Amino acid sequence: MLAERPEGKPTEKTFRLEKATLPAVKDGELLVRGVYYSVDPYMRGRMSDRKSYAQPFKLDAPIEGSVVAEVLESKTNEIRKGDLVTGRMPWRREMIVPAAGVKKIDASFISPSAYLGLLGMTGLTAYVGMIVIGKPKAGETVVVSGAAGAVGSVAGQIAKLSGCRVIGIAGSDEKIDLLKKDFGFDEGINYKTEKDIKAAIAKLCADGVDIYFDNVGGAVSDAVLFNLNFHARVPLCGQISGYNDTDPGQGPRLGPILLTRSVLMQGFIVGNYQQYFAEGISKLTQWVKEGKLKNQETIVNGFENLPSAFLALFEGGNTGKMVVKA
Amino acid sequence: MLAERPEGKPTEKTFRLEKATLPAVKDGELLVRGVYYSVDPYMRGRMSDRKSYAQPFKLDAPIEGSVVAEVLESKTNEIRKGDLVTGRMPWRREMIVPAAGVKKIDASFISPSAYLGLLGMTGLTAYVGMIVIGKPKAGETVVVSGAAGAVGSVAGQIAKLSGCRVIGIAGSDEKIDLLKKDFGFDEGINYKTEKDIKAAIAKLCADGVDIYFDNVGGAVSDAVLFNLNFHARVPLCGQISGYNDTDPGQGPRLGPILLTRSVLMQGFIVGNYQQYFAEGISKLTQWVKEGKLKNQETIVNGFENLPSAFLALFEGGNTGKMVVKA
Repeated sequence: MLAERPEGKPTEKTFRLEKATLPAVKDGELLVRGVYYSVDPYMRGRMSDRKSYAQPFKLDAPIEGSVVAEVLESKTNEIRKGDLVTGRMPWRREMIVPAAGVKKIDASFISPSAYLGLLGMTGLTAYVGMIVIGKPKAGETVVVSGAAGAVGSVAGQIAKLSGCRVIGIAGSDEKIDLLKKDFGFDEGINYKTEKDIKAAIAKLCADGVDIYFDNVGGAVSDAVLFNLNFHARVPLCGQISGYNDTDPGQGPRLGPILLTRSVLMQGFIVGNYQQYFAEGISKLTQWVKEGKLKNQETIVNGFENLPSAFLALFEGGNTGKMVVKA
Repeated sequence: MLAERPEGKPTEKTFRLEKATLPAVKDGELLVRGVYYSVDPYMRGRMSDRKSYAQPFKLDAPIEGSVVAEVLESKTNEIRKGDLVTGRMPWRREMIVPAAGVKKIDASFISPSAYLGLLGMTGLTAYVGMIVIGKPKAGETVVVSGAAGAVGSVAGQIAKLSGCRVIGIAGSDEKIDLLKKDFGFDEGINYKTEKDIKAAIAKLCADGVDIYFDNVGGAVSDAVLFNLNFHARVPLCGQISGYNDTDPGQGPRLGPILLTRSVLMQGFIVGNYQQYFAEGISKLTQWVKEGKLKNQETIVNGFENLPSAFLALFEGGNTGKMVVKA
C-alpha cells in the first residue's frame, strides 16, 4: 500500500504491507498469482499529488503497475488455469482481475519477465521515443542517457539497428563495458568519473548530436544539449535526476540553443502513442527472435522486496529492466 | 557595412557608411533604389561568428536583408522601370541585383512595406510558428510574448482567427491597449510592471496554456512555461531577451515540466518551411483583403538611420514591424 505521499525521496516508510481476504471469483474474472512485478521510475511521479501525465496513486491503496501473473482460477473461456498473463495489476500477492484487462503471453522464446520490459511498456517507450519521435537516419549520431537502464539500453540498441553511431552515458565503468560489449554501443561516458561531460561529448561527437534520448535531465543533459546539431531531436523520456526534488532547481537557459539549432524537444508518455503499439511490438519481437535485440534485466527476489527494488532505481541499482520475482 | 563583430550589445560603431561606384547593368540584371529596408532581431545572430541557423554576415561588407526597391533600369523583359520588387538585398542606397533574385509586388491593396512584414518573412514566420507548429484548435488558450512586435502581433491575430483565446505579453500599457483594441487580443500583460508574471498567467489561463508562441525567452518565458497545459506546443521563434548576452545565463530547469506535461518545443527558422510559403502567403493575403488581419508598422525615415532603427529593436522601440524608409 502507499502509506504516505513522500516529500522528496521515498523511503521504506512510503510503503506498508497489509493482509486482506479476497472475495469469490465471478464470471469474466481470473484469480491470479503474481510472478514478476515491474518497478519503474515513473511511479515516483504517481506517488505525489502533482499535475502530471498519470493520475496520482491513491493513498492507503495498493500501488499498481505492470505484472506478469499465473492464472490460478479462471471464469472465462479464453484463458485457462496455468496460463501466464500480463497487464496493469495491483501490487498484491494474489488478486482477482477482469479477464478483459489482461492478455496471455507467449514465453516460448523469451523469459516471461520480458513482457514487463523489452516486449512491454519499456520496449515500446524506447521504440516510440527513438523511432517515432527521434526519426533516426543512418549515419547520424545518437546519445542516450541512463543508457544502462531499462529504456535506455533498448533505445540505444534500436538506434544501432537504425544505422546510427551511439554513445551511452551511464554511472559505472561496468555499465559502460556492458553497453559496448553486449549492446553494441560505439562509445560510453561514465558521468560519475568524467570531469567535463560537455567536452567529452564534443570530442566523441565531432559533427554534433542528432538525437538525444533523455532519461535523466539535470547537468548530464545540459552537457549533451550544448552539443546538439542543427535539426536535432530530443525525445524527453525521463528526468530521473530530478524526480525526488521538490524544486527543479536552476540550470543554463536552453532556449537560445533550441532556437538557433532548430531543435525539436518532445516530452512524451508512451500511453499517448497507442497507434504505434502493434507496429512496435511486432518489430521488437522480430528483433528478439533474430537475435538482434538483447534483453537485460536486474531481478530482485521476493514480493516483500518491491519497495527496496523501487528505491534502488534512484541509486543506479539496476542494469536493464528492474523486475521483482515473487 | 558591418564594421566590427559586436561583443554583447551592438552600438553605432558596429556599422560604417561607405561610398562605392556601381558598375554597368548587365543582361538579366536590374538597377534598383531601396524604398523600404527591413530590420529584424535575427540579424543580431548573423553579426556574430557563432554556430547558428544562418551564415554570419561578412565583416567589412554590406549587411543584407529584405528590401522593397524601385526599379531604375532593367535589362530583363519581365520587370520594367518603375516596378516595385522585393527580395534579399544589401543595405545599399542603390544596387544592381539579378532579376531572378527578386519578385514584383502588388501594392494596389496594401503599402509596399507590408511585403517586408505581414506579407513577407514576418507574416510567414507567424504563420509557420502558429499554424504549422502550434496547430491551434478552437477554444484553446494561446500566449504570445513580444506580442506587439512584428511577428507577435501577426501570430496573435492568426490565433484569434483560429478561434483561440489569446493573451499577449508586451512591455508598455500603450502596447497592451493596442493589442486589445486593434488586434483583438483577449488579455494583455505588461511584463515591465507586472510583479508576478507566473501568477498573472495562471489567473488569466485557468485551464493552462495550450500554445506558447515564444519570441523573447528568459524570465518572461519561464513564467509562461510553468503554466503549460498537457500536450502544449511551444514554437520557439525568438529569444530576443538574450540576443545580446555572451552567456545564456541560468534559469529554472524546464525538463520536468516538458516531460510530465508531454510538451512539444520546436525551435524554428522560417526558411526551413518553404513548402508552406505559398499556402501561407495566400492565407495572409486573403485575411488582409477581408479586413481580418491588420498591418502594424513602425517606420523610421532615412537610409542613414538603419543602424539606430536596428538598435531600437532591442529596446522595445517598435510596435509591429520595424521598417526604414529611405
